[in-house]
Amino acid sequence: MKKLCSSILILTCMLVNNPEIFAQKKGSKLDDNIESKIDSILPLLTLKEKVDMCHAQSKFSTKGVGRLGIPEIWMSDGPHGVRAEISWDSWDYAGWTNDSITAFPALTCLAATFNPELAEAIGFSLGEEARYRKKDVLLGPGVNIYRTPLNGRNFEYMGEDPFLASKMVVPYIKGVQKNNVAACVKHFALNNQEHWRNTVNVEVSDRALHEIYLPAFKAAVQEAGVWAVMGAYNKFRGQYTTHNELLTKKILKGDWNYDGVVISDWSSAHNTMEAAMNGLDLEMGTGTDGLGTNSVNHYDNYYLASPFLKALKSGEIDEAVLNDKVRRILRLMFRTTLKPNRGFGRINNKEHHDVARKVAQEGIVLLKNENKFFPIEDKKGVTIAVIGENATRSMTAGGGSSELKPQFEISPLEGLKARYKNANIVHAMGYATGPSVYDAIIPSKLNADSLKTEAVKVAKNADIVLFFGGLNKSHLQDCEGADRTQFNLPFGQDQLLNDILKVNKNVGYILMSGNAVEMPWLKNIDGLIQTWYLGSMAGYSIADVVSGDVNPSGKLPFSFPVKLEDNAAHSFGESSYPGIDEEQTYKEGILVGYRWHDTKKITPLYAFGYGLSYTSFNISDVKTDKKTYRANEKIKVTCQVTNTGILDGSEVVQVYIGKPKSKVKRALKELKGFEKINLKKGISKTVEVTIDIANLAFYDESISDWNLEKGGYVVYVGNASNNTVKTIKINIK
Amino acid sequence: MKKLCSSILILTCMLVNNPEIFAQKKGSKLDDNIESKIDSILPLLTLKEKVDMCHAQSKFSTKGVGRLGIPEIWMSDGPHGVRAEISWDSWDYAGWTNDSITAFPALTCLAATFNPELAEAIGFSLGEEARYRKKDVLLGPGVNIYRTPLNGRNFEYMGEDPFLASKMVVPYIKGVQKNNVAACVKHFALNNQEHWRNTVNVEVSDRALHEIYLPAFKAAVQEAGVWAVMGAYNKFRGQYTTHNELLTKKILKGDWNYDGVVISDWSSAHNTMEAAMNGLDLEMGTGTDGLGTNSVNHYDNYYLASPFLKALKSGEIDEAVLNDKVRRILRLMFRTTLKPNRGFGRINNKEHHDVARKVAQEGIVLLKNENKFFPIEDKKGVTIAVIGENATRSMTAGGGSSELKPQFEISPLEGLKARYKNANIVHAMGYATGPSVYDAIIPSKLNADSLKTEAVKVAKNADIVLFFGGLNKSHLQDCEGADRTQFNLPFGQDQLLNDILKVNKNVGYILMSGNAVEMPWLKNIDGLIQTWYLGSMAGYSIADVVSGDVNPSGKLPFSFPVKLEDNAAHSFGESSYPGIDEEQTYKEGILVGYRWHDTKKITPLYAFGYGLSYTSFNISDVKTDKKTYRANEKIKVTCQVTNTGILDGSEVVQVYIGKPKSKVKRALKELKGFEKINLKKGISKTVEVTIDIANLAFYDESISDWNLEKGGYVVYVGNASNNTVKTIKINIK
Repeated sequence: MKKLCSSILILTCMLVNNPEIFAQKKGSKLDDNIESKIDSILPLLTLKEKVDMCHAQSKFSTKGVGRLGIPEIWMSDGPHGVRAEISWDSWDYAGWTNDSITAFPALTCLAATFNPELAEAIGFSLGEEARYRKKDVLLGPGVNIYRTPLNGRNFEYMGEDPFLASKMVVPYIKGVQKNNVAACVKHFALNNQEHWRNTVNVEVSDRALHEIYLPAFKAAVQEAGVWAVMGAYNKFRGQYTTHNELLTKKILKGDWNYDGVVISDWSSAHNTMEAAMNGLDLEMGTGTDGLGTNSVNHYDNYYLASPFLKALKSGEIDEAVLNDKVRRILRLMFRTTLKPNRGFGRINNKEHHDVARKVAQEGIVLLKNENKFFPIEDKKGVTIAVIGENATRSMTAGGGSSELKPQFEISPLEGLKARYKNANIVHAMGYATGPSVYDAIIPSKLNADSLKTEAVKVAKNADIVLFFGGLNKSHLQDCEGADRTQFNLPFGQDQLLNDILKVNKNVGYILMSGNAVEMPWLKNIDGLIQTWYLGSMAGYSIADVVSGDVNPSGKLPFSFPVKLEDNAAHSFGESSYPGIDEEQTYKEGILVGYRWHDTKKITPLYAFGYGLSYTSFNISDVKTDKKTYRANEKIKVTCQVTNTGILDGSEVVQVYIGKPKSKVKRALKELKGFEKINLKKGISKTVEVTIDIANLAFYDESISDWNLEKGGYVVYVGNASNNTVKTIKINIK
Repeated sequence: MKKLCSSILILTCMLVNNPEIFAQKKGSKLDDNIESKIDSILPLLTLKEKVDMCHAQSKFSTKGVGRLGIPEIWMSDGPHGVRAEISWDSWDYAGWTNDSITAFPALTCLAATFNPELAEAIGFSLGEEARYRKKDVLLGPGVNIYRTPLNGRNFEYMGEDPFLASKMVVPYIKGVQKNNVAACVKHFALNNQEHWRNTVNVEVSDRALHEIYLPAFKAAVQEAGVWAVMGAYNKFRGQYTTHNELLTKKILKGDWNYDGVVISDWSSAHNTMEAAMNGLDLEMGTGTDGLGTNSVNHYDNYYLASPFLKALKSGEIDEAVLNDKVRRILRLMFRTTLKPNRGFGRINNKEHHDVARKVAQEGIVLLKNENKFFPIEDKKGVTIAVIGENATRSMTAGGGSSELKPQFEISPLEGLKARYKNANIVHAMGYATGPSVYDAIIPSKLNADSLKTEAVKVAKNADIVLFFGGLNKSHLQDCEGADRTQFNLPFGQDQLLNDILKVNKNVGYILMSGNAVEMPWLKNIDGLIQTWYLGSMAGYSIADVVSGDVNPSGKLPFSFPVKLEDNAAHSFGESSYPGIDEEQTYKEGILVGYRWHDTKKITPLYAFGYGLSYTSFNISDVKTDKKTYRANEKIKVTCQVTNTGILDGSEVVQVYIGKPKSKVKRALKELKGFEKINLKKGISKTVEVTIDIANLAFYDESISDWNLEKGGYVVYVGNASNNTVKTIKINIK
C-alpha cells in the first residue's frame, strides 16, 4: 500500500505539482523547458488521445487527457469583451448569471485612437476578464482589412491600413497574453466581407496579399508572439483559408515560423486531408451535416476526429503530422492553463471601466465642427434635443459573435443626462428599428410617421439638436453574417434629419457605426462626431467629448468615400465586390482605402487619419535625420508640434512615404509611422517618428519576396492622409 | 495614459499576480500571510459584496467579487466520486460530456478496509479528480454515525464507531486537501436517518453527542484541518443543525476553534438571524418558497442574502458577524483557488483506478466461508451460475447526490467473465427492480415469476451458484432522501434464494449493500461476501476476491443484528426511531452498534470488526508496556500476529478498552486502536498499537467536559469486537 500511495504521489508531482518543472527560461522564442516537457508527454499519449485534442468537445472547449492531467482548453468570443457563456452543445446562451462583463469599445474605435498604449491597456483588461471567466483563449483580435464599407464585420477590425493595424494589434495581443490567456488573431485571411463568407473564393495578387492583407497577422505572429490564429471561412485561390496550403502551411507556419495553434473558425474546416496537411491544429464548431449522424457524439465526426484517426491508422497521414499539432496545443497549454503562478484575473473593475472610457474618449473622431458647434456648454435655459434611437439603443446586443452581456451599458442619453445638470435634455426616438437582430432595414411601418412627427416637434422647440444615428448591430447593419445592402443610412434617418433641419439648423450628428456611410445632408449640419461602438462606458465617453471635458483626438482608421463607387473595392463592379457566383477578385490590388483615393485622386468625404480637435495644432520644423539611407538603417523624422489653441489636446503626427518611381505601380504614399502626443495649450514639443528602411520594401511577385528598391522616396508628414504639412525627399542607396 | 496603464498593472500585481504575496508560512495553524491578506481585502469590499459572498449564485457555485479578482467558489458532490455537472439553476444534469469520472468505493467500504493509508489514497485521488474538474470544494466525506440499518444514506458514511470513522476521515481529508481542493465533512450533525430528515428534531444526551456523534467531525477539524463543514438538514434540540447555537457556534467554532467555512446543506438553512449568529457562513441550495418571488434572481432571497443585508444595514446584526464569515470564505479561497502553484489534477487515470480497486479489494468482507466455498477455482468443466440483478446493475446510478457518471463501471458479471476463462459462467437475472430510482420495493409484477423460474433452472444446472443480491441505489433502498422500510431483503430475493437452495446447495451470496440486512437463509448457504458499493472497478475487485487473487481482509464497520429489534435504535420503539410527529430521542444514548450488543449481551449476526480471511491468523503474546499509567501517557499494546495458513493475507488487530467500574454507565468496551498488517504465509510479526490515555475519558455531563476517570480499565485485544484473544487489566493513576 505504501508503494501504491507513493507512486501515485510521485507521478502526480512529476506531471503537475512540482513548480520547478514549470520554471520558465527567458530569452529563446521557444522555451526549452516547455519543449522538453512536451517531448516527455507526447510518447505517453495514445493516437486517439492525440486526435481527440485536435477538435472540439463542446461549442467552446476541447478535450484534455484527464488521466495525465492534460487540461481542457476553454475559449470565448470575442475581440472587445468576453462573451456570455454559451451552452455545451448549442448556440443558446447557457443562462448563467456570472458572465456579465465590461464591454470595451469595438476595435475600429481602438484603431482610431492611434494610441498603442491603449491597445495594450484594452488587451490586458480583456485578458484579465477572460482569465477571471476561466477562459484560456480569447477569440480576438480581428485584423481583417477594411476593404468595403458594406462589410458587416468591419466594426470588429482595425481599419484599412496594414501599418496602423499592425501597430495596434501587437500591444493588444501582448496585453491579453500577459494574463496567460491566449489571444487568437483572426480571421486568417481575406475574410473581408460577410456576404457569401462561407463559400466565396477570393482571388488577390500576391502583392496585395503580402502588403495589405497579411501584415497585421505577420506582426501578431512575429512581433506579438501570438499563441493562436483563427482561420477564416472563405476560400483563397480555390482552397478554404482555414487549411490553405499557401496561407496556413507555407506562409504562416513556414515563412513566418509560427509556433502557435491554428484554430478553425466555427465550422470553417471542410476537409480532413487539407486540414491535416495544411496546418489546421484545432477544429471547432463544425456542423456535422453530411458527415453522418450515427455517432452519439457528433464531435467524433469532425474532420480532425474519426476521419483523421482513420487516415493516421491507415498510414495515409503520418503520425508526425499529428504530433506537430499536439505539440502546438500542448505549447498553448503550457503558456496558459499550465502556466504556474498566473494571475486570477479581474472583471467589471473600475480600472477596466476606465480603460473602456479612455479608449472611447480617444477613439471618438470629431469630423466636422462648424461655428464651434462642439463642445456644448451645460447652460441653464438651454434645451438640448437628443434625437434618434441610437441615443438609447444597446450596441452590445447583436452584431454576431461579438455580442456581449455587459454588467451595464451607459446609453448616450444616460451619459448626457448625467453630465448636463443645467441644460434641459429632451429626447425623441425619431425612428424605430425593432428589437430583432433580423429586423428589416426599412423603417418600421408601425411607428415611423408618429415617431418622426414627435421628433421634429421636439427638435423645433430645442436650442440644440443632437442627432444620434448611424447603424446598429442588427442583421444587415454592422453585424456578422451578412453585409450591409446600402451605403446610405437606414431606417429613414436621412429624411428625418432633413425634416429636422427644416425646423432647427443647429444640428450636430453623432454617428454610431463601424463603417463609413453616405451623408447627403452633411453640408447642412454644423457638427459631426464619429463614435463607433463604445461598450459599457459609451454614454459617458460621448458626454465627455460633447461637453468638452475631453478634447477629441481620434483619427479615422479608414476613409469615408463620398459615394460607394469611390471606394476601391466598388470601382470594378460585381466581380470585385461581392463577386460573381461566389468568385471574387480584388481588382484594386494594393490600392485599398486612402491608397486608392490618393493615387486615383478621388477626394474622400473624410480621409484616413483625419480627425479634428477643439484646439489647434501646428506642425513645423519637419526634418529627417539624413537625406540618404542604407537598407539596414532607420529614418528618424522629427517635427515640432505646437498646441496653438486655448485647450489642452492631443495630435497624431502621421508619416507617410511614397516612391514616385518604381518598377511596380505604387500607392502615392503609405503610412509608415505615427506618434500621438498630448500637449497643454500653448506648449510645443518635438515628436520623433522612426521608420525602418526595410519597411519601405514592396512585395515583388517576380521574386516572390520583399524587394527594397533603391532611389528616391518622398516622406509626407502631416496630421491626416490628406493633410501633409511637409514633404521631404530622401534617397536609399 | 502611461499613468493609467501602470496603475492598472500595479493594482493587479498587488492583488493577484505577484507570487510572493502568496508564499505560505509553514507551522502556524492560521497562516499569518493569509490572515494579513484578508485584513487588506476586507475593507475593500462593500457590504453588498460581502453578503453576496455568503450565498449561492447557482446550484453549485458562489459569487466572487470580480472587480477585485476574488474568485467564485465551485463545489461538487460527492464523497466517493466527483458528480456530473449540474445545471446552473436546476437539478438537471447539464449534459456535458467531460464529466465522466472514476467512481471510487462508497465510504462504508473504505471504513471496512481499516486501512488509513487507503483513506489518504482515495482522498488524494478524489481531490485530483475534483481539481481536474475545476471544483474548489468536494462535498464529502460523510461521517454520520451508523445508528440504524434502515438509514438510506449509511452507505456514504464510515460505520458505527466514532474511533474508526475518525481514524479514516483524517487521512481522507488530508488527501483531498493536498490538491488545494477543500474537503467538506458532512452532515454536521446528527443526520442519522433520511426519514423526515428536513424536519425531524433529534434529542440526544450531551454524552452520546460528544462520545458518539461528534468525534469524527472533531478529528476532521482538529487533526485533519478540514477547510469546510456542511450543516445537516435535521434539528437538534429544537433548532436546525445548520445554524445551531450549540453545534455550530459553541462547539464547532468555539470549543474546537474551527477556522473554516460552514456551508449549509442544499436547502438546510431556515432563518436569517440564526444563520447569521450561529455560524453558518455560506448558504447553498435554499428553495425560495415563502420568501417571495418578486426578485428576478431568487438567490437574492436567500436567508443570507437580502434579509441578511437588511439586518446588517439596520444594525440588527453587527458587521463583524459578516466579516467573520467573509474572512472564512476568503481563507478557503487562499487555501484553494487562490493558492499559487497548486496542481492541475488528473482524472480517470490508472492510478485512480488502482486505488479504487485496492480499496474495494481490502474493503470487501468475507462473512461466511463454510467448506472453503471461496475462493472459487477457474476450472474447466465447472459451471458457475451468476444469479441476481445486482450482478449487472449499475450501482453508481441512483443513490441521491452521490450518484456518479463513471467513465466505466465493471459489473460483477463482467468482472467474473474477465477473470474466469476456463469455468463456464452463466447468468440469470432472477429478479427485476425496474430502472427508476423510484421503483417499488415489491418485485416487479411483470417479470418476477418468469425471471425466477429461469434463474432456478440456471442454478439447477450449475456446479456453483453465486447469488448477487442485496440492496441497490433506488428510492427506499440505499438512497438519499428516504429510509429503507424493511430490514429483510427486497425484490423477493429471500424467496428466490430459497427456491434456488432447493435445487442447488452450493450457494454463495454476494451481498451488495451499504446496510445490514436480515438473512433468514444464512444457515443454508456456504459462502457470504459483503461487497458494499464498489464503483468503477466493482466487478474486477469482486472477481479478485472470489477467485482468491486477493485474500479478503475487510472488517465490518458496523454490526449486523439478527433482527432489526436487536439494533439499539430500534429497541425503544418509534420514539427512538424514526421519532413520533417528527420528534425523536436517541434513547440508547452512547450504546450504539457493538456497544449495545456487547453491553446488552445481544449476539449480533455479524459483529463490528468481524471479517474472515482465506488464511488463518494467530494473535499471541499480547502485552501492554506497563500496568499503570498517568493521564498524559500512552499505552503501548503489542502482540505477535502469525499467519498460520497457507496463503498470504492481512489481519486487523483491534484494541478495545472498557472500564468496568465507572460513575457513569459505560459500554463494555470501545475501540481505541487498530492496526492492519500484511503477512506472508507462515510469517510472524509484532504489531504495536498506541493509545493515548486521554482518549479513555468519557464526556461528563455534570461538568460539561471530558473526564478521565482513574482506576482499573480492561484492554481487549482481538480481531473482531466479538473475538477477544486476550484481556489485560491496567490502571490509571
